[in-house]
Amino acid sequence: MLKRGLYIGRFQPFHKGHLYVVKRALEEVSEVIIGIGSTQANYDIDNPFTCGERMEMIRAALEEAGIEHKRYWLIPIPDIHNNIVWVTHVVSLCPKFSIVYGGNPHTLLLFEDMGYEVRRVQLYKSELYSGTEIRRRIINDEPWEDLVPPAVAEFIRRIDGVRRLKILAEAYEIDKKLKKA
Amino acid sequence: MLKRGLYIGRFQPFHKGHLYVVKRALEEVSEVIIGIGSTQANYDIDNPFTCGERMEMIRAALEEAGIEHKRYWLIPIPDIHNNIVWVTHVVSLCPKFSIVYGGNPHTLLLFEDMGYEVRRVQLYKSELYSGTEIRRRIINDEPWEDLVPPAVAEFIRRIDGVRRLKILAEAYEIDKKLKKA
Amino acid sequence: MLKRGLYIGRFQPFHKGHLYVVKRALEEVSEVIIGIGSTQANYDIDNPFTCGERMEMIRAALEEAGIEHKRYWLIPIPDIHNNIVWVTHVVSLCPKFSIVYGGNPHTLLLFEDMGYEVRRVQLYKSELYSGTEIRRRIINDEPWEDLVPPAVAEFIRRIDGVRRLKILAEAYEIDKKLKKA
Amino acid sequence: MLKRGLYIGRFQPFHKGHLYVVKRALEEVSEVIIGIGSTQANYDIDNPFTCGERMEMIRAALEEAGIEHKRYWLIPIPDIHNNIVWVTHVVSLCPKFSIVYGGNPHTLLLFEDMGYEVRRVQLYKSELYSGTEIRRRIINDEPWEDLVPPAVAEFIRRIDGVRRLKILAEAYEIDKKLKKA
Amino acid sequence: MLKRGLYIGRFQPFHKGHLYVVKRALEEVSEVIIGIGSTQANYDIDNPFTCGERMEMIRAALEEAGIEHKRYWLIPIPDIHNNIVWVTHVVSLCPKFSIVYGGNPHTLLLFEDMGYEVRRVQLYKSELYSGTEIRRRIINDEPWEDLVPPAVAEFIRRIDGVRRLKILAEAYEIDKKLKKA
Amino acid sequence: MLKRGLYIGRFQPFHKGHLYVVKRALEEVSEVIIGIGSTQANYDIDNPFTCGERMEMIRAALEEAGIEHKRYWLIPIPDIHNNIVWVTHVVSLCPKFSIVYGGNPHTLLLFEDMGYEVRRVQLYKSELYSGTEIRRRIINDEPWEDLVPPAVAEFIRRIDGVRRLKILAEAYEIDKKLKKA
Repeated sequence: MLKRGLYIGRFQPFHKGHLYVVKRALEEVSEVIIGIGSTQANYDIDNPFTCGERMEMIRAALEEAGIEHKRYWLIPIPDIHNNIVWVTHVVSLCPKFSIVYGGNPHTLLLFEDMGYEVRRVQLYKSELYSGTEIRRRIINDEPWEDLVPPAVAEFIRRIDGVRRLKILAEAYEIDKKLKKA
Repeated sequence: MLKRGLYIGRFQPFHKGHLYVVKRALEEVSEVIIGIGSTQANYDIDNPFTCGERMEMIRAALEEAGIEHKRYWLIPIPDIHNNIVWVTHVVSLCPKFSIVYGGNPHTLLLFEDMGYEVRRVQLYKSELYSGTEIRRRIINDEPWEDLVPPAVAEFIRRIDGVRRLKILAEAYEIDKKLKKA
Repeated sequence: MLKRGLYIGRFQPFHKGHLYVVKRALEEVSEVIIGIGSTQANYDIDNPFTCGERMEMIRAALEEAGIEHKRYWLIPIPDIHNNIVWVTHVVSLCPKFSIVYGGNPHTLLLFEDMGYEVRRVQLYKSELYSGTEIRRRIINDEPWEDLVPPAVAEFIRRIDGVRRLKILAEAYEIDKKLKKA
Repeated sequence: MLKRGLYIGRFQPFHKGHLYVVKRALEEVSEVIIGIGSTQANYDIDNPFTCGERMEMIRAALEEAGIEHKRYWLIPIPDIHNNIVWVTHVVSLCPKFSIVYGGNPHTLLLFEDMGYEVRRVQLYKSELYSGTEIRRRIINDEPWEDLVPPAVAEFIRRIDGVRRLKILAEAYEIDKKLKKA
Repeated sequence: MLKRGLYIGRFQPFHKGHLYVVKRALEEVSEVIIGIGSTQANYDIDNPFTCGERMEMIRAALEEAGIEHKRYWLIPIPDIHNNIVWVTHVVSLCPKFSIVYGGNPHTLLLFEDMGYEVRRVQLYKSELYSGTEIRRRIINDEPWEDLVPPAVAEFIRRIDGVRRLKILAEAYEIDKKLKKA
Repeated sequence: MLKRGLYIGRFQPFHKGHLYVVKRALEEVSEVIIGIGSTQANYDIDNPFTCGERMEMIRAALEEAGIEHKRYWLIPIPDIHNNIVWVTHVVSLCPKFSIVYGGNPHTLLLFEDMGYEVRRVQLYKSELYSGTEIRRRIINDEPWEDLVPPAVAEFIRRIDGVRRLKILAEAYEIDKKLKKA
């Protein structure tokens, strides 16, 4: 019988650590729902990409990885500011699922307390395969492309994402300096 | 080159008229983005199904119709209460697209005034292939299954959608009677 | 062991039909949670009283009816515009409860589909003991005080609620006339 | 000493009745604050114009009427869905004022109950000088230009407002027909 | 004559410092309204408990302290993001009150500028009787139960609140490490 | 032909650096739209003044500077939490404009990516003519009045803004101490 797993992230950007969790889940369930969290966040230093851009980069990465379309769902999840209510909000947006995967104990706690089975995925080199680290490297002209699937690197270059992040970082530094002045 | 079309509806439920527009768009563009509007609406007489349920029924219908997964995107579009701003909201949630399809001149006007190419699709028997008509028939035990793709009819039966609609209709009648009393 | 029941209404105003449900629930549960719905609604023709005013009138009525304070909770429930998610929103605002009472099948359906036990209360003369009917009578100078507990009638008079409703009705008529013009 | 009056409307569009109230208020106060209500509403049949468009048409009309800029303020007032709280919301957006003008007893009641002096302005031929009537005439190709200041008529023509309203009306009719089907 | 005082806090959790303020207020007023702020916040490291849980723990603590039910009101106050407007939002949710109690000059300033009488309560050992300190101790397995009324300690243990806080703390540390990486 | 420029700030408070940008823009465009951002923020340490107060201080300052009323628009811009959508939100609130001025590369990036011409204004002594610096000086009794136009200093004194900021700062310190405890 069909069994679905849920995996939620912000994917700013989608990296190899994320791809690993998706593959890992697909060993256990027939379909994985990839929930794109904080869909309303974009063009800020922690969330440079729009939801639509993240949809495009994830689909390109999964295609490249040879994962069949019918085995995953991409679902935007706008934030709401009530953690426990957010669980039902997610449930109402997604096709029926029975297991929740994740590396973050906060999300897992929420679904567990609402009666879902959860499975904590031990991330591989999480200090490296991390959106924060990748954004930091992009901003500082350090090598970052190896941390994401090739299709994601290509997409970020195509939409001029490096320039965007650098401008956001410049604006952030100006704000920080003013706050300290 | 890749060309994407956008088609937005509430799909309460997804019916043969909707499927016709999707097929029609796919004759002109390589990928169609199916935007599921009013995602927050559910369990009311005009919007009985949750977003997740609509996602499931649409995917089942497109699979049944032999439309390849890679040729469409399903994207939930929560309402925001500013029509012209809603256009950019949609744009930020979707992969890049260049044409907007629809039968409703309101949506087309909005996208047109924001600089998009729009294409009005003449609907076939729109008084029949209509969510309102289908919900009315379900409530009144009239034949409705022929108006939706078989996979949708099957899904609605499986989630006990007929019972849900009838209870919503009963509640609606009680409210109406009180208002008139 | 302690068992709590939930009963949600708008209580515009709290009338004898509401009081009947509260008493009825207290025959079965040790504590009843009275959820005041649409707390943000006030000063409109269907919702003339603020949440705080409704809190005051309900407490006065229950005191008058000899119901002990410790047997009920008064809890404001602001609207959110997603029906199924609203259930968890209610749950997060209330002390733990196990049964839901009500006369409206819509609310009961929502809680039932989220796994709660529900109990439909057959209302006595619901066309009479109805907020809509009471507001209509107040506006038209027809007798209304017998439909609410004496403490509620007294409270409405004290805050000049009759005048408020009449002005709201006058404004409503002006709007309606303009719409038709 | 400086004394300010507040006058709130939706101004869809700004017409001669509105101009009359502004002039009338300026006989009593040194400055009038024109609050543009429901700023988020636009491109719908009851609210065809954006806030920015309404700002432009009002300023053009007041200039044409020879009212000095320094005697008025134009302030957008987004809706919030709590009537009594809306008063403080308005207060926080506006320069300090002491009198509220209006033709609608609902708005006046709200400000009065929050402690403001209010003055009801008897409108002249309100069934004629009415946004609803003007929009109806535009849609039906009946004469409407005499009901608004010449600068407003000119502005609406310049932004192709007649076409916009007609498309919105067409969409509205389609929706209504579907609802009835 | 009846005189009511208002006291607002987040009560994460309700501790002996809070209880002291309630008792102190009850020496001066006949009824105290306990406003539970940030009702939408839950399951985060600064706000571990839902509104409903806070309602339960406060009522248990007041009962234990021998404070009669009729002398207090428990009222959830959802956040709104406009400080001065928030005052009227509070007023609309509460029964009429005339004095505001508190230890935080921010809240008192807001009510004072909106015309209310305020009374600053000097807190006793505020670095100890503090939600922040209690949460810190729970997370670090230091003694915390003496800082809250026994009924609150018992409630937190019963709902497994210690485990919840520790998981939230673990998630917080993971996030912080990623941000610094 | 008429050409409008947009300049957005929070203006907490409006200072000489802001006035400089307005004057600079008016050398190039016939009208400048001054967008007052974060209109909902007030009575907090970073945003002490309400939108209405900021409207008053800006108008007083521009009058004092001899800038004609007809050359500027003051438009409140409430925050929305989606950066790229915020651009259209701004556009819908303002009269038509063609250039965006600003010192902050974040805002300029957003408008540029939405197709607007932007012009970065090099601020003069931005560490001095800065809202953050001015608020810091007010709180610490250091000289600040020279950093704002005389009319602004006078307005802040008249509404007792210095006292307000000091109380907000005291509350902020109390919170910070508790967080660290």
